Amino acid sequence: MPTTVSAYAATAPDQPLELTTIERRDVGPLDVRIDIKFAGICHSDIHTARGEWGGVQYPIVVGHEIAGVVAEVGSDVTKHKVGDRVGVGCMVNSCGECVQCQKGLEQYCLEGNIGTYAGTDVDGTPTQGGYSQQIVVTEKFVLSIPDGLELDVAAPLLCAGITTYSPLHHWGAGPGVKVAVVGMGGLGHMAVKLAHALGADVTVLSQSLKKQEDGLRLGADRYFATSDPETFTELASSFDLIINTVSAEIDLNAYLGLLAVDGTMVNVGAPPTPLPVQVFSLIPSRRSFAGSAIGSIGETQEMLDFCAEHGIGAEIEVIPADKVNEAWERVLASDVRYRFVIDTSTLA
Amino acid sequence: MPTTVSAYAATAPDQPLELTTIERRDVGPLDVRIDIKFAGICHSDIHTARGEWGGVQYPIVVGHEIAGVVAEVGSDVTKHKVGDRVGVGCMVNSCGECVQCQKGLEQYCLEGNIGTYAGTDVDGTPTQGGYSQQIVVTEKFVLSIPDGLELDVAAPLLCAGITTYSPLHHWGAGPGVKVAVVGMGGLGHMAVKLAHALGADVTVLSQSLKKQEDGLRLGADRYFATSDPETFTELASSFDLIINTVSAEIDLNAYLGLLAVDGTMVNVGAPPTPLPVQVFSLIPSRRSFAGSAIGSIGETQEMLDFCAEHGIGAEIEVIPADKVNEAWERVLASDVRYRFVIDTSTLA
Repeated sequence: MPTTVSAYAATAPDQPLELTTIERRDVGPLDVRIDIKFAGICHSDIHTARGEWGGVQYPIVVGHEIAGVVAEVGSDVTKHKVGDRVGVGCMVNSCGECVQCQKGLEQYCLEGNIGTYAGTDVDGTPTQGGYSQQIVVTEKFVLSIPDGLELDVAAPLLCAGITTYSPLHHWGAGPGVKVAVVGMGGLGHMAVKLAHALGADVTVLSQSLKKQEDGLRLGADRYFATSDPETFTELASSFDLIINTVSAEIDLNAYLGLLAVDGTMVNVGAPPTPLPVQVFSLIPSRRSFAGSAIGSIGETQEMLDFCAEHGIGAEIEVIPADKVNEAWERVLASDVRYRFVIDTSTLA
Repeated sequence: MPTTVSAYAATAPDQPLELTTIERRDVGPLDVRIDIKFAGICHSDIHTARGEWGGVQYPIVVGHEIAGVVAEVGSDVTKHKVGDRVGVGCMVNSCGECVQCQKGLEQYCLEGNIGTYAGTDVDGTPTQGGYSQQIVVTEKFVLSIPDGLELDVAAPLLCAGITTYSPLHHWGAGPGVKVAVVGMGGLGHMAVKLAHALGADVTVLSQSLKKQEDGLRLGADRYFATSDPETFTELASSFDLIINTVSAEIDLNAYLGLLAVDGTMVNVGAPPTPLPVQVFSLIPSRRSFAGSAIGSIGETQEMLDFCAEHGIGAEIEVIPADKVNEAWERVLASDVRYRFVIDTSTLA
């Protein structure tokens, strides 16, 4: 029999989230039931709930930065046991059979991975996310949170952490590599911590110098304001890798001009409208402009282990569930340093 | 004392080329004097001579697909000797000291490589290209044309060949790799031959099927018309590498949609206006959009050796020098299969 659990749900694109209940499926042979302890608030939650990324079925429960404790496991589960500290990120399943899944790149599953919310689960029901008391997920998509990593600061690693770790790792951030992080928000602050821990030379490119002190404290070697045109002259042709965490429209060619020969700029967020790219920004230095989506399950586990080893968590502000609507408004106003995390025990 | 040689020069942006004479510098200790035998006609020659890529100093002699025979060498030259069959491509020098030159990537010299024409030579004079009887070039930038490769079909390899070989090589075209070539002109037909010889699976994406027979003969496995919208449905997410040889404006996002996960589209030509890129075309499959410029001296030699080994030359139409203006008009009308080569013996 399904289990009824409390959750905060959006009932319409233009309505505040409301406390309600949802059903979680029975634990199947390969499933893990998780008591959610903390759920991070990601900007994507807001976009999705408000229908800005396409129509969704209401009510919808969002949240894909989930940290909790295993409450029950199916008969064939071997990867996790009751009491384990675990996490769930942006996806809860994939086809498992396509060439990408076989390569261990579930995030790029050719059938489309199943999102933690607003996806269609294997049983045809819509997936519902982490702003809730419990979730049931197939064991393969449940990550282990290592000892030494608190659950509250671990939650945002499941999206903000892996979304920045994956391109840093894929494009070789490490000693001797000059990395720029564009934007100093939820994703940007994680990119700074991770790139620094990976041994790269890290520069933050933020609209203003307001968060400079934080940036340097979190591991940046340098901090520049992009509102100052001098920044683009001074830093011309200097980065091997630029991680752009900003979804707003930017002057892409100005940023491409900051790449060294063979440098790559990777967008992890997408502005709603196309960005004009001047091809002459790319050709004379063999530059690339790329995109990257979250990370694979294997890579997410690697990232969590890396974070535990280096004492890295997100910078968070923990809130009770009934403050979620207020928190969303503050996210939209960029008034958070650097991630809200819902204490889901307050849902009871 | 400088040597006076015959050449075809542009005297103004809007005037036909005229037979004239230019001076070639004395052979210095590291210089090689080359009797030019053949010079390919590249679209860039026309853009440059007509001032479409910025102001140039007139008269200007263009041509950067040069094949000839060594006529004289400087006292310290060790790489070439009189009588050697040699070539010169798009650059005749670079700083030699920057990190890119030290890595052997002279084409990306941080000081800017010195173009074969419209550049400023080390002595401060403007460089003059291959539509002439002779050229004097420092030995390092003079390539050896291997036995078995005729000089006339070798000439276009120095630009059209290396410009396509370099990205094919850099992005790993080979067995099991699906390559698409956009455009079936001077560069495109070389990309097809080279990608095929490298062992890749090759698809041509051309505006129409007019040149399909040629494409398949030159090594393409498949040939599609981009004027047919079905092409973009049928080939969605299927290529590891797309080499775009077309400088005209295209619907970039439609082409990015043809890339598989981790695929890269490389432009070797640049349209004059920016191309709008929809970042959502890149993110969900970790795709990249890149640019590439010619190739290094080492890579150019490697390409020439590869071509000799595989019996690859350009498909050419040889013309006497006094037909050059007519040939330019035909290039602009895409009326050439696939490269005009000037027989420079007709300059005498």
